[in-house]
Amino acid sequence: MKKFMDEDFLLSTESAKKLYHEYAEVMPVLDYHCHINPQEIYEDRKFENITQVWLGGDHYKWRQMRSNGVDERYITGDATDREKFQKWAETLEMAIGNPLYHWSHLELKRYFGYEGNLSGETAEEVWNLCNEKLSQDDMTVRNLIKKSNVTLICTTDDPVDSLEWHKKIAEDDTFDVQVLPAWRPDKAMNLEKPDYVEYLAKLSEVSNVQIHSFASLIEALKNRMDFFAENGCSVSDHGLEYVMYVPASNEEIEVIFAKRLAGGTISREEELKFKTAYMVALGKEYNKKNWVMQLHYGVRRDNNRRVFDALGPDAGIDCINNFAPSSEMAAYLNALAITDELPKTILYSLNPIDNASIGTIIGCFQDSSAAGKIQQGSAWWFNDHKTGMTDQMISLANLGLLGNFIGMLTDSRSFLSYTRHEYFRRIMCVLIGGWVENGEYPADYKALEKIVKGISYNNAVKYFGFDL
Amino acid sequence: MKKFMDEDFLLSTESAKKLYHEYAEVMPVLDYHCHINPQEIYEDRKFENITQVWLGGDHYKWRQMRSNGVDERYITGDATDREKFQKWAETLEMAIGNPLYHWSHLELKRYFGYEGNLSGETAEEVWNLCNEKLSQDDMTVRNLIKKSNVTLICTTDDPVDSLEWHKKIAEDDTFDVQVLPAWRPDKAMNLEKPDYVEYLAKLSEVSNVQIHSFASLIEALKNRMDFFAENGCSVSDHGLEYVMYVPASNEEIEVIFAKRLAGGTISREEELKFKTAYMVALGKEYNKKNWVMQLHYGVRRDNNRRVFDALGPDAGIDCINNFAPSSEMAAYLNALAITDELPKTILYSLNPIDNASIGTIIGCFQDSSAAGKIQQGSAWWFNDHKTGMTDQMISLANLGLLGNFIGMLTDSRSFLSYTRHEYFRRIMCVLIGGWVENGEYPADYKALEKIVKGISYNNAVKYFGFDL
Amino acid sequence: MKKFMDEDFLLSTESAKKLYHEYAEVMPVLDYHCHINPQEIYEDRKFENITQVWLGGDHYKWRQMRSNGVDERYITGDATDREKFQKWAETLEMAIGNPLYHWSHLELKRYFGYEGNLSGETAEEVWNLCNEKLSQDDMTVRNLIKKSNVTLICTTDDPVDSLEWHKKIAEDDTFDVQVLPAWRPDKAMNLEKPDYVEYLAKLSEVSNVQIHSFASLIEALKNRMDFFAENGCSVSDHGLEYVMYVPASNEEIEVIFAKRLAGGTISREEELKFKTAYMVALGKEYNKKNWVMQLHYGVRRDNNRRVFDALGPDAGIDCINNFAPSSEMAAYLNALAITDELPKTILYSLNPIDNASIGTIIGCFQDSSAAGKIQQGSAWWFNDHKTGMTDQMISLANLGLLGNFIGMLTDSRSFLSYTRHEYFRRIMCVLIGGWVENGEYPADYKALEKIVKGISYNNAVKYFGFDL
Repeated sequence: MKKFMDEDFLLSTESAKKLYHEYAEVMPVLDYHCHINPQEIYEDRKFENITQVWLGGDHYKWRQMRSNGVDERYITGDATDREKFQKWAETLEMAIGNPLYHWSHLELKRYFGYEGNLSGETAEEVWNLCNEKLSQDDMTVRNLIKKSNVTLICTTDDPVDSLEWHKKIAEDDTFDVQVLPAWRPDKAMNLEKPDYVEYLAKLSEVSNVQIHSFASLIEALKNRMDFFAENGCSVSDHGLEYVMYVPASNEEIEVIFAKRLAGGTISREEELKFKTAYMVALGKEYNKKNWVMQLHYGVRRDNNRRVFDALGPDAGIDCINNFAPSSEMAAYLNALAITDELPKTILYSLNPIDNASIGTIIGCFQDSSAAGKIQQGSAWWFNDHKTGMTDQMISLANLGLLGNFIGMLTDSRSFLSYTRHEYFRRIMCVLIGGWVENGEYPADYKALEKIVKGISYNNAVKYFGFDL
Repeated sequence: MKKFMDEDFLLSTESAKKLYHEYAEVMPVLDYHCHINPQEIYEDRKFENITQVWLGGDHYKWRQMRSNGVDERYITGDATDREKFQKWAETLEMAIGNPLYHWSHLELKRYFGYEGNLSGETAEEVWNLCNEKLSQDDMTVRNLIKKSNVTLICTTDDPVDSLEWHKKIAEDDTFDVQVLPAWRPDKAMNLEKPDYVEYLAKLSEVSNVQIHSFASLIEALKNRMDFFAENGCSVSDHGLEYVMYVPASNEEIEVIFAKRLAGGTISREEELKFKTAYMVALGKEYNKKNWVMQLHYGVRRDNNRRVFDALGPDAGIDCINNFAPSSEMAAYLNALAITDELPKTILYSLNPIDNASIGTIIGCFQDSSAAGKIQQGSAWWFNDHKTGMTDQMISLANLGLLGNFIGMLTDSRSFLSYTRHEYFRRIMCVLIGGWVENGEYPADYKALEKIVKGISYNNAVKYFGFDL
Repeated sequence: MKKFMDEDFLLSTESAKKLYHEYAEVMPVLDYHCHINPQEIYEDRKFENITQVWLGGDHYKWRQMRSNGVDERYITGDATDREKFQKWAETLEMAIGNPLYHWSHLELKRYFGYEGNLSGETAEEVWNLCNEKLSQDDMTVRNLIKKSNVTLICTTDDPVDSLEWHKKIAEDDTFDVQVLPAWRPDKAMNLEKPDYVEYLAKLSEVSNVQIHSFASLIEALKNRMDFFAENGCSVSDHGLEYVMYVPASNEEIEVIFAKRLAGGTISREEELKFKTAYMVALGKEYNKKNWVMQLHYGVRRDNNRRVFDALGPDAGIDCINNFAPSSEMAAYLNALAITDELPKTILYSLNPIDNASIGTIIGCFQDSSAAGKIQQGSAWWFNDHKTGMTDQMISLANLGLLGNFIGMLTDSRSFLSYTRHEYFRRIMCVLIGGWVENGEYPADYKALEKIVKGISYNNAVKYFGFDL
């Protein structure tokens, strides 16, 4: 029996151990997609206690606490931080097989030096240990990042954002990790939302482009993309219900947009046409700028309206949307490729059953402008666990070139989550090591080193073209 | 090489053996959903031969015999019981990897003491052995149930049922296993069926509520729910094509219902609206009564009409319906949750690819009224095998709290099928034991005992609130 | 650690080795579905170099080269064969876990005696070795087939084909491998294509049936089916987006067909109705002739129109179409079964998530006219790898009788691809051997021999009724 989470955690073969400890473990971390707050980096925030770090905004954990029958008071309510931590510790004990069990213990080991098991019984000692550590200077946000061997972070930012904190970090010589903005223009697309027109007003203001038409909307966005690019941005990101493709003429799009500006009601079909046009226009612009386009899709958000009314979005009430026609996704990519304007693209579906169809679609649109130009993103959100990551990599290997995979990202709001890169690399090494052990790939360590270091770090550096 | 189905069957690690033999094996069986006939329990039926027990109504086996090219005469026709048994034995030999291979041999071992392999060649000896055993008094229905360490059984009953046999069993002091009715009101929902109005007449009669409107239909059902509750029922069950949500006003529903009563044709959209209203109304009632709502969906029934015309329903001609939008299921649950009227709910899809989307949906609707209030049911029907059960538990563990899972049920018509609980527990223990062996969960046997005994039995007792 | 692809490649247990080396390895190959060119067999083609064999028309490899960022010039363009081979060798190194890695090395071992690893560095030695071998007489097409222990090949042929080469091969006494035509009448179905009417003219001509109606179209096809049958054909094959069922009256179908003949525009609904009628009519005819009907579905073709415009179809730009309602497939099969006119049928979906729904559908339509009358085809195209084949066989075992599975086919254009049968058999033996090792099936080698030899070869011979 292997010891619980020892240094060879998940590395069940000798090949896996070699690949991990010699190649994967030593590579830095490039976190090309996350949701951390750049202000907290600039201000080098310090946390008061482990509940703040762990339960402050982590809806992954909130869901599990509700699943354990915990009252909302101890989750998002007015219970004390110590009480909340107790409820979380009791919940974790039931989370056998869940990635949160591993993430939490990896974080306790790597950042707090705690080698035991967190449970209701040990909660008090863990609480004390963590809070004592958090009071030390080497546990500030910047030190956590440096300690995690991170070289570059891409945040997630709205087009109207001033990028104030990114600028300040860039100007600060005392911190040499690159913290770059990433472009997430969902609000400018979601014309079905009640506050859409209000948002456009903000966008007009910051861009100095009066938005009175779809064409001027795109102009305003181009203006902001230039601004983002000046601040080091080269990555975009979209959150989509699914990757739709319902083409329409420019005239039709302008009519839809004008109707929306005038406060009219937009049909579902009009919505899809508008969003299609929007995505085509931006995709072409990304290509022009040599940006990477990320598409995150397959989500139905805010399902429990009672919770939503109390807590708002990102409250742990999202689920998989299992409607995602491969035909429309292929048609969308073709609409860009046909004029040779398809940018480097990363596709992430929330539905793990899409692995195979994505794998077959990306193969249709590869070309010589980049190795692995169209990528299937690493297992995302609900799939970010051993099974999900393994399945995504096996699917990728079966259908394409795993050797060109750009690998892991945290997608996280937490400064402790870099251990997820460790988790991913262990899973990747046990998978590849298993093939070597089983005679399915030669024990050619020159090739294996290239592949493992590539997936851990090097491929992403090359793919995004970051200056590192 | 492990011996075929020895005492450590499926338990390939030391941890698995310990978990199974020390914790899982010793727990009683709570069979909270099955299709056995309470009359046979009351009358303590004795079987003449193994063909009666195994092939009498078991469409799982019929399908396999047809797959082996066996003529219908030897399946549901007028061949002798001995001839049918021969054909089944020959079929089983080809069923390598099929759960029926394991179920059949577990039943032969546990109830008949047969340790060999059933095949065409051994059919004669097995036939003789089984029939000799079946003639003994300890092989009556009641003795089989007691021998299986069953404490409680929920049958599946129509609202118009008199519950005569449940009452008689309850009054019989010589049998202390609880046999409770469960409420399955599909016939009152399926207004597209030709005999719907006829059914409503029966329901009017037994409820003493004249059904002339949708409102009075619900009244009649409430009346019967009270009657079921008086007889110990606290569990409902629905069979759905998929969990639909097409909302409509009360007025619209009444118009649809009136049209149907008058013999008019109902469109597909009207059908979906009616069924949505029906499911919302009943869900609220279950919540009021603190009943558990089970939703079995993803089925397309009676596909081969030639067989259906000859044999009727439940003839082994059903398949997966792969249309099941997660958006509608989430919307339905929200329609109950928004007014805090969502009952404890168990979701079972016949399509195994729904595992992940179900796992993400249940997480949206958990609350403090019960640990694991919204459950994903154990792998159901066509998925009730090693792969299906393993995948369902891994998915549950990845996305929620496996520790709160209420575990197995037989869903069976047979009194020998309690060995499926053994099968499930072995699979559960090898899964959890594997995590312990691999260092993914600590060898903390206090926590593991709680989890394993919980999933085997204790969680279900607590969840349903049975008095045991 | 096992050596890379040694004689026990993939056979990780003793049981697997025994099953493979004693039962599977010795069986001949029946390749009942492929795309090789019969002319090349008749003319006993010799290849100049390994690039001709490997990269001439193999869009599987083209996709991977594009995924490696290789310029089209080195894939389908005017680079030299040596240059192309170099690029392929470099690509292969990144293809860790991909079936092409295994296929390529199996082919190098079995046909060229090369035991090393192909990579950019070894490309030169492999190029020289292969080309030297290819210049030898025992490497002609016929010798490759005989060396591969093939007894029978079904090609894929259009109804208008003259079958000239099949006839010549049949008349040639010096080659005793049967090379039979298979009927693939897609062009006569796809009325939405621009060249449909033109195709009908050809079909009219070769059949001597003037096609002026749907009825006469079917007559013309029956005429050609008779011709195919005279030349040994007993297998049909269809390529479908999905298995649709949108029934319509004969009159309606004739109106749609007449409209198309007159150059009118056909709606999507009309297209589906026409195709449904077409598939029902042909299915009945197959049944009459005791032909096997193969349905390959779940494909969206020619997605990248820029590549399509340059290279045409089969250029490596196809993907999974994930719309495939199980309800329509079941309804289609029922439309044939209801009058007892359902032929032996093999269902292949390109989408691996359809495994379970297919497995449940085939079970509804089995009957005593053949063991395993309705088959799920072996993992197809993008799924033709270890994971895909394993999953398909596990699904089949869970839901039906794996023992009756008719097993592997190459679906290939290459004369070196018979090693895929070896690959399949190894995977089948490690799966079945694993069950034996784990005590899930008895070590009854008489039964196991029947099953393994059956799946390798005997089941297909019996199922198709070939005279071998």
